[in-house]
Amino acid sequence: MTNKQLLLAKRPTGMPDRDTWNLTSTPIREPEAGEVLIENHYISLDPAMRGWINDSPSYIPPVQIGEVMRAGTIGKVIKSNNHSKYKVGDVLTGWGGVQQFLTTEGEGYYPVDTNLAPMTTYIGTLGMPGMTAYFGIQEVGKIKEGDVVLVSGAAGAVGSVVGQIAKIKGCRVIGIAGGPEKCKYLTDELGFDGAIDYKNEKVSAGIKTHCPKGIDVYFDNVGGEILDAALGRLRMHARIVICGAISQYNNTTAIKGPSNYLALLVKRATMQGMVVMDYANDYGKAAKEMGGWMAEGKLKSREDVYEGIDQFYETFQRLFTGEKQGKLVLKVKE
Amino acid sequence: MTNKQLLLAKRPTGMPDRDTWNLTSTPIREPEAGEVLIENHYISLDPAMRGWINDSPSYIPPVQIGEVMRAGTIGKVIKSNNHSKYKVGDVLTGWGGVQQFLTTEGEGYYPVDTNLAPMTTYIGTLGMPGMTAYFGIQEVGKIKEGDVVLVSGAAGAVGSVVGQIAKIKGCRVIGIAGGPEKCKYLTDELGFDGAIDYKNEKVSAGIKTHCPKGIDVYFDNVGGEILDAALGRLRMHARIVICGAISQYNNTTAIKGPSNYLALLVKRATMQGMVVMDYANDYGKAAKEMGGWMAEGKLKSREDVYEGIDQFYETFQRLFTGEKQGKLVLKVKE
Repeated sequence: MTNKQLLLAKRPTGMPDRDTWNLTSTPIREPEAGEVLIENHYISLDPAMRGWINDSPSYIPPVQIGEVMRAGTIGKVIKSNNHSKYKVGDVLTGWGGVQQFLTTEGEGYYPVDTNLAPMTTYIGTLGMPGMTAYFGIQEVGKIKEGDVVLVSGAAGAVGSVVGQIAKIKGCRVIGIAGGPEKCKYLTDELGFDGAIDYKNEKVSAGIKTHCPKGIDVYFDNVGGEILDAALGRLRMHARIVICGAISQYNNTTAIKGPSNYLALLVKRATMQGMVVMDYANDYGKAAKEMGGWMAEGKLKSREDVYEGIDQFYETFQRLFTGEKQGKLVLKVKE
Repeated sequence: MTNKQLLLAKRPTGMPDRDTWNLTSTPIREPEAGEVLIENHYISLDPAMRGWINDSPSYIPPVQIGEVMRAGTIGKVIKSNNHSKYKVGDVLTGWGGVQQFLTTEGEGYYPVDTNLAPMTTYIGTLGMPGMTAYFGIQEVGKIKEGDVVLVSGAAGAVGSVVGQIAKIKGCRVIGIAGGPEKCKYLTDELGFDGAIDYKNEKVSAGIKTHCPKGIDVYFDNVGGEILDAALGRLRMHARIVICGAISQYNNTTAIKGPSNYLALLVKRATMQGMVVMDYANDYGKAAKEMGGWMAEGKLKSREDVYEGIDQFYETFQRLFTGEKQGKLVLKVKE
């Protein structure tokens, strides 16, 4: 039995190509005392992964050439060598990377209960993307009842949860997504008050229509022109949460800064960045509350699962083409 | 006796030219009951004036074509027609505009005591620029002892006060200014810990040298490349105060947005805009505290006074060429 691993082969310029990673097979290392062997079932594919392979200082060290590609994972313990906490059959989520197996002391992992939610949800709405949404919109966006909330990447893993939490908290919520199908999903299935199809509408006009009095909170996953459009429609004391900038991640030229940033002055507004890891101590509490909302049917989760570690590259591309519905997941258990 | 007034003649594209304004003479209107006639002594010249003549929504309505150019002023009551508060000889500061005389009910004016400070200081360090600095660096920048504070436009009316207040509050302060003379003024006269001459040094390298551990607070008066350089050297949880963007006010193309804005995410930092008028209720308290610092010699004020309302255009240009020392003032009393 060997372990298929995806190693970083080179640093890409612009959109990664097929040669950016290299699929190899290595023998599985037997767990030493205090270690477990985990079989990864699902790998989380997230826009942030694009940033992790740049060789530049960020909130986390870059993946090095030759290393296993970093990724959030969920899997099952298939061997335990006297591990103090985990036994065979336990389901653990953590940073397992793009590979089939991992031998580890379990640092940074935590156990989940698959009777409450399926594995894929634990790397989606109850995982990093959901936590990002939960803390971002509440702690940084500081939403309150009656706020007008705009979210980009609204049909994605983070955006869909941002919008639903804002609805739960009594906000008016408008989502920006690509294509009529995603927009229909937002309004008809997730209960958003409106949706703007950035592939077929002018976003600034759409914001004006849906938010005639402007925006109190903008949760930004995309950057670029959409960030500028949102800046152009702020209300007084608005908050912008900078969570990501997927439109800029594959740039070969400089990132486009928001030329409307002086709206921050005019509207006495705030633009603040966030990284989900800062809230790690409160993940448990958040998962409990979000799990409750899911049980009540107030918070819906959708995962788009593709299969096979050899399909990593094709699946990863969907993050940037938008050809996916909800949280993008790769099943790697054979 | 006539009133020389500077009227807005047209909306400029880029740097205003001489035909942007039109100097006229009109008869002085006698005060009606409850009004005073004020003779303006000094007019405050501020970068924000450039924004006020654009026909675009902002924090204050644009000056209309044919209207007296808006400006902060200080002057003396020379006639009172039973005004409830003001009598002949009172010195008042307010929005008197670029003209020699003004007949008014006095709304928005407040009296000052010229025994405590000269008139010019009341439109400088104890006026709008000083208030902007006082509230901006404390309420928005949230400085605390030991913070590393960077300020651009540091030899100007706002920046010089920002830096001195930060020093009073126990911060390490680095200023960015144009030319060796201004830089020497910052370190030798105002007690800044360091200065970066943006006309002769690479700002990002200068920040690295002076702030090896990065910046906690950046007070931005200039925007453009300097804002990007500051973003590139933020510490965790840094605050950026957006007060102005003088480098961009005369652009004929789109404003340059800060392409390094994703540093906000990496550093969990905040960029927040401010407008001084929001703090109007606390001006009195601020003036008292700043007056105290001035009396103790901890807060120095420098005004650069030019003379003659017909010199408005030449003097106004100095805001953008930087050919001035400290607060730019035009004396209009003949």
